[in-house]
Amino acid sequence: MTLKGNCLIAQSGGPTAVINNSISGLIKEAMRSPQINTVYGALFGIKGLLQEQIINLGNESRHNIEGLRYTPGAALGSCRYKIQDEDYERLLAIFKKYDIRYFFYVGGNDSMDTANKISILAQENGYDMSVIGVPKTVDNDLPHTDHSPGYGSAAKYIATVVKETGLDLQNILASSDVAILEVMGRNAGWLTAAAALAKHHSDDAPHLIYLPEVAFEKEKFIEDVVKTHKKLGYCYVVASEGLRVKDGSYLAAEKATDAFGHAKLGNGLAAELKNLITSRVNLKVRCNVLGTSQRSAMHYASRTDASEAYLVGRDAVNLAVKGLSGIMIMLERDDHPQYISKTSFVDLSQVANIEKTMPSNMINEDGNYVTYDFIRYAQPLIEGEISIPMEKGVPAYVKLDGYKKMHSLYRKSPAC
Amino acid sequence: MTLKGNCLIAQSGGPTAVINNSISGLIKEAMRSPQINTVYGALFGIKGLLQEQIINLGNESRHNIEGLRYTPGAALGSCRYKIQDEDYERLLAIFKKYDIRYFFYVGGNDSMDTANKISILAQENGYDMSVIGVPKTVDNDLPHTDHSPGYGSAAKYIATVVKETGLDLQNILASSDVAILEVMGRNAGWLTAAAALAKHHSDDAPHLIYLPEVAFEKEKFIEDVVKTHKKLGYCYVVASEGLRVKDGSYLAAEKATDAFGHAKLGNGLAAELKNLITSRVNLKVRCNVLGTSQRSAMHYASRTDASEAYLVGRDAVNLAVKGLSGIMIMLERDDHPQYISKTSFVDLSQVANIEKTMPSNMINEDGNYVTYDFIRYAQPLIEGEISIPMEKGVPAYVKLDGYKKMHSLYRKSPAC
Repeated sequence: MTLKGNCLIAQSGGPTAVINNSISGLIKEAMRSPQINTVYGALFGIKGLLQEQIINLGNESRHNIEGLRYTPGAALGSCRYKIQDEDYERLLAIFKKYDIRYFFYVGGNDSMDTANKISILAQENGYDMSVIGVPKTVDNDLPHTDHSPGYGSAAKYIATVVKETGLDLQNILASSDVAILEVMGRNAGWLTAAAALAKHHSDDAPHLIYLPEVAFEKEKFIEDVVKTHKKLGYCYVVASEGLRVKDGSYLAAEKATDAFGHAKLGNGLAAELKNLITSRVNLKVRCNVLGTSQRSAMHYASRTDASEAYLVGRDAVNLAVKGLSGIMIMLERDDHPQYISKTSFVDLSQVANIEKTMPSNMINEDGNYVTYDFIRYAQPLIEGEISIPMEKGVPAYVKLDGYKKMHSLYRKSPAC
Repeated sequence: MTLKGNCLIAQSGGPTAVINNSISGLIKEAMRSPQINTVYGALFGIKGLLQEQIINLGNESRHNIEGLRYTPGAALGSCRYKIQDEDYERLLAIFKKYDIRYFFYVGGNDSMDTANKISILAQENGYDMSVIGVPKTVDNDLPHTDHSPGYGSAAKYIATVVKETGLDLQNILASSDVAILEVMGRNAGWLTAAAALAKHHSDDAPHLIYLPEVAFEKEKFIEDVVKTHKKLGYCYVVASEGLRVKDGSYLAAEKATDAFGHAKLGNGLAAELKNLITSRVNLKVRCNVLGTSQRSAMHYASRTDASEAYLVGRDAVNLAVKGLSGIMIMLERDDHPQYISKTSFVDLSQVANIEKTMPSNMINEDGNYVTYDFIRYAQPLIEGEISIPMEKGVPAYVKLDGYKKMHSLYRKSPAC
C-alpha cells in the first residue's frame, strides 16, 4: 500500500533539549518525499489538534527549520492530554478534512499510547493512514529502544552540573558537609544514575546515588551519608524525585490542602532528605533542584543525542512512506568496538504505557550507586557538543512563525 | 620601596566559575616577576594558612596553571573564616617564616576585610609586605569596582537557564501556569536581575523579578502573578533568596530546631512563594532552585568575565611589585562606543564590609522588574563563550597537584 496525501506532525509531554531535532528531521524528510504533499503541524499536540490548531510547516523559513536543530522546548507546543472516547470522531474528521495520510506523534509513554489508539481508530474506520510514534524523553523509560532521544543531553548536563557543584562542595571548608541534587524521574532512575558519569576519581562527586528502583531505607541512608562524610570530609548525594519507601509510598509527595483550605508546602525530595539528615546528625546540608532546566538545557546538549533525535525523525518518514504503520521508531546500538547506533522499529502496542526501569545489573548491591554496566551503557550517549548561534550573550533560539501567530491567542483562551 | 621575597596566594568565600582565572593570572605574573622568588599558595584560605597548609605553586605543571583558566570551584580550596585576635601573631610568624613579601587574597566583602586587617597588622609590626585584595563574587556586591569578576558568568548562565526553562513553560499546555526560579543573593539583587538578559520579546520569560532591594509585598506579588497569567496564559517569576518583607525579616529563613531538637525543614524562598500563590489562587506552580550550580557553571562561562578575572589577577601582581599595598584591584569601564574595561584600584578600607546593592534607576517603579539602565550595564558582561577540553562527554577540569596531595588528609582531620 502506497499512500499519497498530507502529513501531520505533533508532539506531547515534557520537552527535551533535542526534541526539535526530531521535528526538524521529520519536516525536512517529509518535504522531500514525493508521497507527501503538505506538511502540517498541530500545535499543543492532540489537544490543539482537536481544536484544529494546525499550521502549514511548508511556510516556515529554512532558517527556522534549521534553527530547530539547536532550539530546546516544544517548538510546536505540547500538552498532557489523555484521549477521550468522544474525541475519536472529531479526530477522524480532522484527518479526513486535511487529507492526513501520515501522522507522526513525538513523545514518551503516554504519547505512544495515544498514537496506538489513533492507529487502531484509523484501521477500524477503514481510513488509510500511517501512524508512527517518534520517541523522546529525558527519563529514558521507553521500552525496546536501546535509549530514548533526549536522555543523552539531559544526562550530559546532569553529569556536568555534578562535576561542577562537586568541586564547589569539595573545595570550601565548613560551608556544607553534604550536597543533595534532586533529579527528575518518577519511576525510572536512568537520569539520576547519569550523575555517575561525572566521577573519574574515587573522591569525586557523586558518592551516593538513590534510584526509584530500590526501596529507600531511611536508616541506611543516614548511615551511608555519615560513613562517606567520615571518610572524605564531605558527601555528594544524588536522588530521584520519585524515591519510595518499602510500602510503595513516595518519600516526598505534594501535600494536600489543610483544614482551612490553604495549600501546604509541597516539600520536594531534596528538602525531605535534608530534613532526614539534619534531624539526626550534625551535618550542614545544601540542596540543588534543577527542575525543568534538566530537560531544556540545549546550551549543553550531547551531539550524539541531537544527531540521533534528528535521525529518528528522518527515518520515521522513510518507514512511513515504505508503508509501515502502528509502530514506534527506535534506536539499536552496536558498540563493538565503538559506539554506533541505527534505527529500527517496534509495534506501538508493545510500547504503550510500558516503562523501562533500570535493570539490576546496573545497580550496585548496596542499592546506593550504579555499576560499570551502567557507565558502559550511558557514557557514549553524552559524547560531543553542539555549537549554537549566540545573540547578546545568550543562545539565539528560533520560534516557528506559525507558532508565534497562533500561540498567544490560544494560550489566553479560557478553554485551555 | 621595592620589596624582594616570596609571594602567597589564597582565596576565600564561595567560588565562582572563573575565580581560578584570577589565580592563574596571579601565578603566571608572579612567576615572571624578578622581585618575586617562590610563589606559594595557601590551601583553604586563611584557615589553612594558620595551619601552614602551604604549597609551592612553582611545582605545578604548565598544563595545570593553564587548566585553571577553564576550571571552576576554588582550586586552592576556600574557607569562610573570620580572623580572630589570637590569629594575628601566628599569621605574622608564618609570613616571616616563609619570607612572604607579597600577599594576594582573592575573595568578596569578608575577604577584603581580612586582607585589610592583615595589611594593618603588617604595617603596625613594621613588617614590609604588599597586601592586595583581588575581587570575586557572583553577587556583584563589591563597592567601587564597576562589577566583580564571577558575576558575568553566573549572570550568563542564569539568563540562559531562564531562556530555556522559559520556553519549557510557554510551550506546554496545562503543565505549569507559573515557574519560579530562586537565585542567589542575600542582600543584592544583581544576579537575580540578570534573568532579564534572557528576554528579547515582550512575551518571553522572565515576566516578574523580585529583588532584595525592594521590600516584598505579598498581596502585590499575587496580584502581579495573576495579572501576568491572565495576559499571557503563563508567568515566569525570578526571585532573590534574600527577599524581605517591610519589617526587614527574611521571607524564607532557615527554621530553628523544634522542642524535640529536630531540625525543621529549611523552606527555601521558591517554596515559600509557591505556597503564597497556591494558597490563594488556583494556579499550578513549579520551582527551580539552581543552588551552587549558579556559581560553578564554568561550562557556560562568559568569555568577557573569564578574561577580566585573569586580568585582575595579572595586574594585581603588577601593582604590588610597583610598591602598592592595602588596596583592592578593581575594574573600570569605558563603554562608549563599545564596552572596554581596564583595571584600577581602591583602598581596602573603602571596600571592607561594604555591600553594593542595585541603584534605584535600575529597578522599575513597580519594584517588580529591572530598567533598561540595568540591561545596558549588565549585557556586555555576559558576552562570549569559553572552549573547554572534554573527556568522556564532560569537561576535563584540572586539580592542582599540591592540592590533591594535601586535600584529603586535611579535610578528614577533626580539626576542620
